Amino acid sequence: MQYPFKCGRIRRLTSYYPVTKGVNMSLEKFFSPQSVAIVGASQKKGKVGYEILTSMVKGGYEGKIFPVNHKTSEIEGLKCYLDLKAIGEVPDLVLIIVPARFVADIMQQCVRVGVKSVVIITAGFKEVGSEGLRMEQQVVQIAKQGGIRFVGPNCLGVMDTASKLNASFGGDLPVQGGIGYLSQSGALLAAILDMANANGIGFSSLVSIGNKADVDELDMIVAMGEDPKTRVIAGYLESITDGELFVRKAEQISNEKPILLIKSGGTTAGAKAASSHTGSLAGGDTAYECVFERAGIIRCNSIEQQFSFAQAFANQPLPKGNNVAVITNAGGPGIMAADAIERAGLGFAKLTDETVEKLTSQLPPAANVLNPIDVLGDALAKPYEFALEVALDDPNVDIALVLLTPQAMTECKETAEAIVRISKKKTEKPILVCFMGANKVASALKVLREGKIPQYNSAESAVSTIRVMTDYLRWKNRPKRVVRLFPVNRRKVENVIDRHLRQGLREVGEADAKEVLEAYGFMTPKGSIATNAEQAVNIAQQIGYPVVMKIWSPDIVHKSDVGGVKVGLNNAREVMDAFDLMMYRIPMKVPDAYILGVLVQQMCKSGLEVILGMNRDPRFGPMMMFGMGGTMVEVLKDVSFYLAPLTADEAKQMLINTRTYKMLQGVRGQEGVDIDAIAEGLQRLSQLVTEFPQIKEMDINPFVVGREGVVPIAVDARMSVEKD
Amino acid sequence: MQYPFKCGRIRRLTSYYPVTKGVNMSLEKFFSPQSVAIVGASQKKGKVGYEILTSMVKGGYEGKIFPVNHKTSEIEGLKCYLDLKAIGEVPDLVLIIVPARFVADIMQQCVRVGVKSVVIITAGFKEVGSEGLRMEQQVVQIAKQGGIRFVGPNCLGVMDTASKLNASFGGDLPVQGGIGYLSQSGALLAAILDMANANGIGFSSLVSIGNKADVDELDMIVAMGEDPKTRVIAGYLESITDGELFVRKAEQISNEKPILLIKSGGTTAGAKAASSHTGSLAGGDTAYECVFERAGIIRCNSIEQQFSFAQAFANQPLPKGNNVAVITNAGGPGIMAADAIERAGLGFAKLTDETVEKLTSQLPPAANVLNPIDVLGDALAKPYEFALEVALDDPNVDIALVLLTPQAMTECKETAEAIVRISKKKTEKPILVCFMGANKVASALKVLREGKIPQYNSAESAVSTIRVMTDYLRWKNRPKRVVRLFPVNRRKVENVIDRHLRQGLREVGEADAKEVLEAYGFMTPKGSIATNAEQAVNIAQQIGYPVVMKIWSPDIVHKSDVGGVKVGLNNAREVMDAFDLMMYRIPMKVPDAYILGVLVQQMCKSGLEVILGMNRDPRFGPMMMFGMGGTMVEVLKDVSFYLAPLTADEAKQMLINTRTYKMLQGVRGQEGVDIDAIAEGLQRLSQLVTEFPQIKEMDINPFVVGREGVVPIAVDARMSVEKD
Repeated sequence: MQYPFKCGRIRRLTSYYPVTKGVNMSLEKFFSPQSVAIVGASQKKGKVGYEILTSMVKGGYEGKIFPVNHKTSEIEGLKCYLDLKAIGEVPDLVLIIVPARFVADIMQQCVRVGVKSVVIITAGFKEVGSEGLRMEQQVVQIAKQGGIRFVGPNCLGVMDTASKLNASFGGDLPVQGGIGYLSQSGALLAAILDMANANGIGFSSLVSIGNKADVDELDMIVAMGEDPKTRVIAGYLESITDGELFVRKAEQISNEKPILLIKSGGTTAGAKAASSHTGSLAGGDTAYECVFERAGIIRCNSIEQQFSFAQAFANQPLPKGNNVAVITNAGGPGIMAADAIERAGLGFAKLTDETVEKLTSQLPPAANVLNPIDVLGDALAKPYEFALEVALDDPNVDIALVLLTPQAMTECKETAEAIVRISKKKTEKPILVCFMGANKVASALKVLREGKIPQYNSAESAVSTIRVMTDYLRWKNRPKRVVRLFPVNRRKVENVIDRHLRQGLREVGEADAKEVLEAYGFMTPKGSIATNAEQAVNIAQQIGYPVVMKIWSPDIVHKSDVGGVKVGLNNAREVMDAFDLMMYRIPMKVPDAYILGVLVQQMCKSGLEVILGMNRDPRFGPMMMFGMGGTMVEVLKDVSFYLAPLTADEAKQMLINTRTYKMLQGVRGQEGVDIDAIAEGLQRLSQLVTEFPQIKEMDINPFVVGREGVVPIAVDARMSVEKD
Repeated sequence: MQYPFKCGRIRRLTSYYPVTKGVNMSLEKFFSPQSVAIVGASQKKGKVGYEILTSMVKGGYEGKIFPVNHKTSEIEGLKCYLDLKAIGEVPDLVLIIVPARFVADIMQQCVRVGVKSVVIITAGFKEVGSEGLRMEQQVVQIAKQGGIRFVGPNCLGVMDTASKLNASFGGDLPVQGGIGYLSQSGALLAAILDMANANGIGFSSLVSIGNKADVDELDMIVAMGEDPKTRVIAGYLESITDGELFVRKAEQISNEKPILLIKSGGTTAGAKAASSHTGSLAGGDTAYECVFERAGIIRCNSIEQQFSFAQAFANQPLPKGNNVAVITNAGGPGIMAADAIERAGLGFAKLTDETVEKLTSQLPPAANVLNPIDVLGDALAKPYEFALEVALDDPNVDIALVLLTPQAMTECKETAEAIVRISKKKTEKPILVCFMGANKVASALKVLREGKIPQYNSAESAVSTIRVMTDYLRWKNRPKRVVRLFPVNRRKVENVIDRHLRQGLREVGEADAKEVLEAYGFMTPKGSIATNAEQAVNIAQQIGYPVVMKIWSPDIVHKSDVGGVKVGLNNAREVMDAFDLMMYRIPMKVPDAYILGVLVQQMCKSGLEVILGMNRDPRFGPMMMFGMGGTMVEVLKDVSFYLAPLTADEAKQMLINTRTYKMLQGVRGQEGVDIDAIAEGLQRLSQLVTEFPQIKEMDINPFVVGREGVVPIAVDARMSVEKD
């Protein structure tokens, strides 16, 4: 059963999206307009209004261009119009380059004329302060009412190679290719473009999304997802507008094509005072890590890395597995590639006997016919071609990595041509190439580029690209996400939460938190509150020794810090002593605390302590946490996070993702614990926090688990709520 | 007191080295010969003998060139000689390019004529099998007797830019610079040369060391260490000839100039059956990691990375600290740099109020005058120059990183010139640069290159270079290594080892191992061997309960695996039961074991269990290990290694290097343990294994440590010995 996303926040967001989409669902006109009006076109060199106009012309755009400028009648041979109305037809796309204070007026004109798609290049809005923000909001208002979608303001513009549209001042239109790029930094986009043009990297489209006042990163990712010319979506982001929607849509799109994102500003976490363990362990970047993992997004740390990856995804098929065959004409680079493959956790293909025989029959006797296949330093193009073809025919080989060092006899260009030939013949398996050197391999690199063979400067970067390809493959082949729904008592939880919210209480006490957990199927230890020492002994005798005693007060959150927890009490004397000591000492330490009594509770004698938790991210919703308990979490911070709602697989994967997972399986003599029971606990907690968005943070600590079949116990719990 | 390296192996190696050195200590003639003879010079294009001759001429070598070839009288206008003797003078350097079978003869000729320095280019020796190895050994023999040092065979040759010597067929002579490069792979060297020449990277010298039959990697590193033109030594190695000597010499040289090495073939560890914990935890690469750490060598994973680092070391001063100031003309790249700096654990410079004021006074109001300093997208060269100079004047700034994206107004080339100007004025602090893009920044990159400003393709690679520079700085400033010598009873250890070696025993039993440890100042638990149950009870009563009992047999190494260990025995009944059960069960499990009795031993009730260990690497000698005990070592493999002999600092650092170091300091309520006592244990063990090279492996497991002032106890120990 697919999880129905019943709860408030998600429902609100799903219903929000179609409102805008309904007006003008497709962003197609931004990429293949039949006509473009340039409002603010200029005849002065150096002015953006001139640069964009000439970019359009130079790029070879074949639609109609309507420069709009009331001060002149002609620019660069093109007739100039007084205003949009004077054009006499409705342009598919309008670029606005006039000063910020005039932009609202032009947008009004657009509405009147019936324009549907606009790019606002002009800067000086939100990014310069409150007056700019006001103007930006005004523009948004006009556009929304007029049913217009717009990119920007404060952006470089839009490029689309198929329609030869260069509606930007970012640089020359690049060659056609499979990469769609969106950037929240215009300057970065210009640098990327310069780099890409120098290296012949092809794009489907490039978009500078600027201030994202209307069209945002997700709109663009969706549009590129729908565009058949885009094989891989890449981008640079500093923020994500609508977190939960982003996760869902990006996950859908990742199933079709890879998304490679740089998300900057991750490490400097906003210092948020968190009262829970989970909250304090989640770094500022944890949410993004979770989101990217869930949505299958490949996170990149630099532009270099991003284009290393993008090249391969855009031009090569996905591998079927992770076994790499290396073909080289020098031993050293072959060993370096083998090292990198082992470090990356990839497989080193074991060639079949048949392959080894074939290679032996044709390669010189000194050649290494095992993997890495060393065709020797004097190899011409032929042995390379032969070895590559034979390797790709081997069923044990999923990916081929060809290394070449330019030696005296090496036919660099011919070898490149041979590789391109083979790649056209064997289209099922990816081929990556590293031709070392520069001048000697320059013409070969050109051949490879034109033949759509991704080329790397080092075996290492080729191997890390292969690793990312296999990671993506694994993600794509993941089992269908089925979130289990447990039968629960929602009414009981509603009551607890409502009561706290009515009373303006944020922190939910242990007893109430446990009532909530019981309503969701958790087992909690037996116990009751004692208000005097005799009562404590009676309760202990009913439960059976040993018992735990905990001070009971809504004002004391960290009980053990004030001496409010005693464990392992074995008889009546110890229980009485503990009670009286707490009553004597704690009021001295926390004089203002209102003390209700002491909880006398069953002690879980054996079992391993773990933590289950949740921290609600303001953008992305509930993040589940699993962690090893006790000193492990203190010392190693051995925890893992994942976005709720969790499937059974995801819950189990959270356990596996901790460094001390083996502790759960049992080590040397120690029995393992019931792993499925922990995973179920995580799923139940995930259901709880998904169904109640008012729950902001939650810890079950410790969650004591025993061997298989033993029901785990939520020994202590903490929870905080807020109005949704 | 400096450790005197008294023990056998090290002494042997120190005395070996000067023998060769005495003959011809300096390798100077390889780099600045006044005359070079080329034996095997050819007039046929494409032949190596022709390529090298023309390389020499084309490179502009100003000394005398003597081609030697008995078949011709002139090559390319140079007079050709019948043989070496016919030259009539002794050439400083002889290159041998004749077929392998003639090489020994030529070497004989060299001896007769009085040549001292030879490069054997010819391949077909050790690398092709046993016949080649025989020929190689013959050549070595002749050279040694004749007092000749030679590079090769099977190499590309030698290049030296100052003397314009290109005695190689690797490619064109590169420009002069501060990088000395040695490579065990000729093909890789050729590729590096091609790449370097295309990017204008300067070298002092490049050497292809080939089969290293005489001159090896260490000789070359020493020679480059002595060469004032070499500012940084870089290389690619597949093996190290003489491990312990390498460590000592490389450490000396690293004090003067950085050594950047790629060591390949590290990950595929030779599967060595190890009987100790320490041995099984030391991976194939652990020894190299230890060696590189001790010797201050910077390990690189790829050529790209190596040249990223080398560029900075060769051309910029070392920073004084790790605080980076970033100057940028775009927000996005600035944030990416800030992220990278935080991830790399570097400091983000906090500018002084004075700096902020100065920047405010001159930069436009919208500019960001905090770090990263954003001079804004329309900044010309001037504001860049101003901001860089002000930043470098700030005492809180140790390193400047300048980022540039080519935008409409950007003066790329002028900005580069400004940076070079500032760098010449402020020579104290390193400047690293990342100009993004390609064609638009090409002329700027040329200016930077000529101005010796290292340039990176991404902020990430600049930042990882800065990280490596600060790591090297920290290594250079490390405290002087002083190895403490404890008063010990060496005689007692000699006796134990001699007895075992005489009897042909490899494994030393627990009792003897403990005797050895006691001789080196370790405390071991009280206890004796019982041969019947009553005796066991008597011993237990003398020691005091609780006790531990362990089966006592030279044939049983893993006692607990056969039920041969019982802990926490509290009374006579339990001791008797344990004794009888062992006597009944163990002979059934290991029928052939010779059982001497059962050890009844004091039980260390409290304290933390750790492991001290040693594994002797065949190349580099004793590697010390420290690890957390119990499940930590099973699950996390939380261990650290370091080369013996250890200083107090190094021993302590080994503890700090474990992931669970905090456990030793004490966490939440648990008291910390005596960290100095553990460090002393490591130092004592280090002294033991340094003084007795016959000890091959050793474990003290567990080593039980208590709070400060409590003497730790070596509860169990294992040791194996071999004839040295």
